[in-house]
Amino acid sequence: MPQLGLLPGRAWAALLGQLLRPPRVVCLGAAHSHSQVAEAVLASQLKPRQEKSNFILKTPKGTRDFSPQQMVVREKILDIIVSCFKRHGAKGLDTPAFELKEMLAEKYGEDSGLIYDLKDQGGELLSLRYDLTCPFSLTYLCEVPFARYMAMNKLKKMKRYHVGKVWRRESPTIAQGRYREFCQCDFDIAGDFDPMIPDAECLKIICEILTGLQLGDFLIKVNDRRILDGMFAICGVPESKFRAICSSIDKLDKISWKDVRHEMVTEKGLAPEVADRIGDYVQCHGGLSLVEQMFQDPRLSQSKQALEGLGDLKLLFEYLTLFGIAEKICFDLSLARGLDYYTGVIYEAVLLQTPAPAEEEPLNVGSVAAGGRYDGLVGMFNPKGHKVPCVGLSIGVERIFSIVEQRMKTFGEKIRTTETQVFVATPQKNFLQERLKLIAELWDAGIKAELLYKNNPKLLTQLHYCENMGIPLVVIIGEQELKEGVIKLRSVATREEVAIKRENIVAEIQKRLFES
Amino acid sequence: MPQLGLLPGRAWAALLGQLLRPPRVVCLGAAHSHSQVAEAVLASQLKPRQEKSNFILKTPKGTRDFSPQQMVVREKILDIIVSCFKRHGAKGLDTPAFELKEMLAEKYGEDSGLIYDLKDQGGELLSLRYDLTCPFSLTYLCEVPFARYMAMNKLKKMKRYHVGKVWRRESPTIAQGRYREFCQCDFDIAGDFDPMIPDAECLKIICEILTGLQLGDFLIKVNDRRILDGMFAICGVPESKFRAICSSIDKLDKISWKDVRHEMVTEKGLAPEVADRIGDYVQCHGGLSLVEQMFQDPRLSQSKQALEGLGDLKLLFEYLTLFGIAEKICFDLSLARGLDYYTGVIYEAVLLQTPAPAEEEPLNVGSVAAGGRYDGLVGMFNPKGHKVPCVGLSIGVERIFSIVEQRMKTFGEKIRTTETQVFVATPQKNFLQERLKLIAELWDAGIKAELLYKNNPKLLTQLHYCENMGIPLVVIIGEQELKEGVIKLRSVATREEVAIKRENIVAEIQKRLFES
Repeated sequence: MPQLGLLPGRAWAALLGQLLRPPRVVCLGAAHSHSQVAEAVLASQLKPRQEKSNFILKTPKGTRDFSPQQMVVREKILDIIVSCFKRHGAKGLDTPAFELKEMLAEKYGEDSGLIYDLKDQGGELLSLRYDLTCPFSLTYLCEVPFARYMAMNKLKKMKRYHVGKVWRRESPTIAQGRYREFCQCDFDIAGDFDPMIPDAECLKIICEILTGLQLGDFLIKVNDRRILDGMFAICGVPESKFRAICSSIDKLDKISWKDVRHEMVTEKGLAPEVADRIGDYVQCHGGLSLVEQMFQDPRLSQSKQALEGLGDLKLLFEYLTLFGIAEKICFDLSLARGLDYYTGVIYEAVLLQTPAPAEEEPLNVGSVAAGGRYDGLVGMFNPKGHKVPCVGLSIGVERIFSIVEQRMKTFGEKIRTTETQVFVATPQKNFLQERLKLIAELWDAGIKAELLYKNNPKLLTQLHYCENMGIPLVVIIGEQELKEGVIKLRSVATREEVAIKRENIVAEIQKRLFES
Repeated sequence: MPQLGLLPGRAWAALLGQLLRPPRVVCLGAAHSHSQVAEAVLASQLKPRQEKSNFILKTPKGTRDFSPQQMVVREKILDIIVSCFKRHGAKGLDTPAFELKEMLAEKYGEDSGLIYDLKDQGGELLSLRYDLTCPFSLTYLCEVPFARYMAMNKLKKMKRYHVGKVWRRESPTIAQGRYREFCQCDFDIAGDFDPMIPDAECLKIICEILTGLQLGDFLIKVNDRRILDGMFAICGVPESKFRAICSSIDKLDKISWKDVRHEMVTEKGLAPEVADRIGDYVQCHGGLSLVEQMFQDPRLSQSKQALEGLGDLKLLFEYLTLFGIAEKICFDLSLARGLDYYTGVIYEAVLLQTPAPAEEEPLNVGSVAAGGRYDGLVGMFNPKGHKVPCVGLSIGVERIFSIVEQRMKTFGEKIRTTETQVFVATPQKNFLQERLKLIAELWDAGIKAELLYKNNPKLLTQLHYCENMGIPLVVIIGEQELKEGVIKLRSVATREEVAIKRENIVAEIQKRLFES
C-alpha cells in the first residue's frame, strides 16, 4: 500500500482520528441579506481626515477564510497528494491567477457565465482562471493554463503537477456545498508515448492518493470517449445530438435511467427506440470481462471507433492488473464526462461510503477525483496546430477537505494549530531577560519555542498555556536555577521535572524531541 | 545561528551554489505590442462547430508562469521562511483572493488605482487582494484581510502567518522588475502585550530568515512613527504636511538629501529653515547610543510623543541585545515608511551587498523585509472600534527569488526539478510487464520512481535519461535477472552494479537512500 509520503503515517492517522471543533464560520457565501451584516465604523485615530463609513464585515459570496484548524487539515491533505505526484516524478508548475480573456474562447461555452472577468481598467481584458488544466468541469471552455504553457513554450512532453486556487461564479444554491473559490490539484502527463502506459499511471496515482488519505473504500469508473461516440452512432443518435445526449447520460449517477430516458426523448428530441438502445449499454458496468463482452457485441463491434476504445481499455486493464489495482476499476458505459476535449479514456473516482459512524449526517460528496485523455487541447493553442497528446487527473480536494472536516466534527479532539515544542517559563518576577536569552538559544538551534509576552506572567498561566496548546516540553528558569547554573526541564504530559545543566539544555531537548 | 528548518542545510547550500539555466521566458509583461504575438489557430478536431480564431499566446501584462526550475527555488525559499514562522509558534491562515470592494475604502487612497477590480457581473462588487496584512505598500489603503479576519471573528490575540498571492496594477516601467502578481509572506502578532517583546521577536525573525537564506550581510533600519511625528512637530512642519513630508523623507535611501530637501521646499511648500532642521535629524543613524543621544536632544526631548518612541526603542535595543542581534539593527531617523497606519516602531531590512561575484550584473533589490506596529488597524474594522494592537513583518520574497535566481544564473549547474530516486530500466524487448510490476512495488513502498513510457526503450536512452535528470539509482530487469530471481541495482554516479535478490530489492533501495 502507498506510503503517506512526507507525513508520518501515525501523525496523519492521529489527525484523522481527532475531533476538530470547527471555528465559528461567519457570513459565508450563502448570506444574501445585508441586514445580517454589521455596520462597522471607520474610527481610525491615525489620520485627521478620517470619516465614518459603513463596512460590510464579511467575505465575498461563495468564499471563506481558512482558520488555523482548517489550514492544518488542508496542509496535511495537500502534503499527501503532492508527495504522491513527486513520487511519480512530476515537476511543479505555477501560472498566473488570471489569463487573457481571449484565451477563453468564450463564444463556445455554456458555462462562460461562470467565469470571473476583471474590470476593464485600461489595457488587456482579463479573467480569473477557471481551471488549471480542465478535467473537473462540465464545460469545454476553460482557461487551460497548462495547455497554454505547453504551447507557448513549444514543449513536446512534460509531467507536471499544479496546486492552485481557481474561481467560478457558481450559484451556491444550485451547487450545494460548493464554493466560488477553491483549490485544484492537477497532475498531467503530456507527450507522445506508447498506448495506455501513462493512462494506467494516472489511475495508479488516484488509487495511491485515495488509499493514503484513508477515506474508505472507493471505485474508479472508466470509459472511453470513442466507445461513447461509437455507441451513439450505432444506436442511431444523430451526430448533432452527441453532446446533448452525452450530458444527459452523465446524470445517470444522480438520477434514474427512466428520468434520463425521459430527458433524452422529450427535451432533446431523441427517438424512443434510439434511447432504449442506448439504455441497454449505459446500464452495463463491470471489469475486464465486460470489455471482452463488448468486443463480441454484434452492434458495437461494427464501430471502428468503439473497437479502438475497447482495445485500449483491454490494454489498460492488463497494466492495472500489473499495478495491482484492477479490482478498484470498473468499466462503466454510462460514464460520459461532459468535457468535449476528451479524446480517449475517461475516469472518475467515487467513494463507496463515507467511512464515518452512523450518527454522522450523510454527506453527498460526489466524485473525489477524475480525469482522462485529451490529445487535442494543446494543439488548439499551437499556432501550427501541433498536437501534444495528454492524459491527466484532478483530485477533488475541496470535497476531500469537507469529508475530513466533517469526520473531525463527528469525533471530538482538538487538533494542534502550532508546532511549538518547548515553552520557556519562569516561576518568578523579573526573569524576562533570562527567558529572552534562553529562547533565542532554542530558536537558533532550530527548536520551535514560545514564551508569554508578559514581563511577569504567573507560572500557572504559563503551564495552562502549554496544556491548552499541546506543547510537550517546558523549560523553567528561576532564582534557584540561575544560582545553580541549571534549567528545569518539565514534561507537560507526565509533569516530571529534571534539572539540566545550563550548557546542556539544548542538547537534552534535541535528544528528547528526537526520541519522541 | 538559525537552522534552516525543514530543509537540510547542505541541500540548500548546494542549491544556492548551483547554477540555474533559466528557462526561456516568453512574452513577459513588458511586451506591449501585439505584433510580437503569435497567431494561434483554433484547430480542434474535437467538435464540428470549430472556427478559426486568433489567440494571443502570452500571460497577462506584468505576470508570468513559474517554470519547474523556478518552482524548486521558490519552494525551498518559502520552506525556510515558513519553518521560521512555525518555529516562533505561528498559526497558518488563508483568506480569499478577493474581498468586497467596500472594504478598501477607496476614497482615501492615492494607490487605489493600483487595485484590480472585478467586473460587475451582478452581485457584490469585488477587488483582488492588494496585500495580506499591509506592511509592504505605500498606501494607507489596502485589503487588510488579516485585520478583517480578526475583527470579523472578534479575536483579541493571534500569532499567524500567511503566504499568498496578491495583485497590484503597477506599471512595470515605473517599478522596474516588479510584477503585477506576486507572492507575499506575512507574520503578525496581534494582542495586548507588554511593550516591545513581540516587536523584538519580529526583528529576530527577520534576522533568522535572512541568515537562513544566506543572502549575505544585511542591516535592519528601525525608527518609530512617534519619533517622526514628534520631530516634524518640533521642527515646525504644519500637521497638514506630515504625510507629504514623510513620503519625501522615505526617498532618502534612493535620492540625496539635497534632492529630498528640494522636493520638500519647492514641491511641498515647506519653509527652507524647517527643511534644514529636519535635515539635521534624518541624516542621523546609529545604535543604542544614538537613541540615548536623542533623549538628550534639546528640541526633540520637548516632544512627549518622541520621548515615548525613544523610550520604546531603548527597551527594544535591550531585548535585541539579549537575542544577540543588536549589531544587525540601526536606528535611522530617515526611515519613514509611507504607511499611515503604523503607530509605533517601524523597520526595514536591506542587504548590504549582493553576495555575488564581480561579473554579475548589478541588481537593485531594495529592501527585503519590512514591518512595524499598527495598533489601530483592527479597530477600524470593528463595529465598536475595539482595538487590537498588532506588530508584524512582511518578507519581500519576490525580491529574494530574484536575487537567488540571478545568482544561479551567474553560477552554472542545473538544478533537479524532480525528486525521483530510482529509475526502472530493462536492456531487453518485451519487458514492459516486469517493469510495471516492479515500479508498482517501489511506489507502494514510498520510493520515488520513474520509467520510460515506451514498450521497448533502448537501454542507453534509459541510462541517459537518469543522467540528465540526476536520478541516483537504476534497477535493471532483463532475461538473465528474471531467470536468476534477481534485480540489478546500478549507481548512476559510479556505474557500479550489483545483483540483489528480487524479494530484497525494496529493502536494499531504502537502505541506500537512507545512507545517502
